[in-house]
Amino acid sequence: ALEADGFGSRRFYEGFVAESHKLKQVVGYAIYYFSYSTWQGKSLYMEDMYIRPEDRKNRIAISFFHLISQAALAENCMRMNFCGLKDNKPAVELFQSLGADNLTLKEGWHYYRIPRHGIEELAQPSIITKFNP
Amino acid sequence: ALEADGFGSRRFYEGFVAESHKLKQVVGYAIYYFSYSTWQGKSLYMEDMYIRPEDRKNRIAISFFHLISQAALAENCMRMNFCGLKDNKPAVELFQSLGADNLTLKEGWHYYRIPRHGIEELAQPSIITKFNP
Repeated sequence: ALEADGFGSRRFYEGFVAESHKLKQVVGYAIYYFSYSTWQGKSLYMEDMYIRPEDRKNRIAISFFHLISQAALAENCMRMNFCGLKDNKPAVELFQSLGADNLTLKEGWHYYRIPRHGIEELAQPSIITKFNP
Repeated sequence: ALEADGFGSRRFYEGFVAESHKLKQVVGYAIYYFSYSTWQGKSLYMEDMYIRPEDRKNRIAISFFHLISQAALAENCMRMNFCGLKDNKPAVELFQSLGADNLTLKEGWHYYRIPRHGIEELAQPSIITKFNP
């Protein structure tokens, strides 16, 4: 599915991989896509960054942020957004050192998800009368 | 810019508007785009929903969520994501009644943003040596 969605006729994401010349294998990846803000226009959303535990010394992460920033500028994006776990201390410190604003702490933005079964329920016409009897 | 980005050769967002037959004018809009998760595949991100203050009785909001859910199913999305301000009590209550999980409270996800000037700095080659001297 990753192959079809990333390399098919419509590309749902783009990304970079980090390769170890010594090991001749991929040791990390970063995946992003272009998003949109009503007020600011085109943005880049950094969906997922993974680096295998023994290589987490920020060197690869910085390179990923560097390359993704160049991709953001190439599309004239005004912002780069991403989510991070509040208890992941090394990541929180890295994000801060890179100049990222924590909008959850700063402005009170919370992140919500409606799972598939909720979407299916909301898509039923009966939802209208259920909430507006 | 909204017209070019939403109705040009590449569509960066889709959306719905609510029209008042009585007033013959638009009283609200909801904008979304398709996003991607490494683990779950295609998702829908509800970027912005605005309904003018005097019409905020949830009726229009429910209809927007209903229509957007149908759009999500049509693209076979597994999730719908969005952000909300924690102090917007009517919205928080609505999201809960619709079956949305608050991933910030439940799992500790915080939302970050790197503004344009930060992106421009990260895109400079010197960033690599700055963080890895």
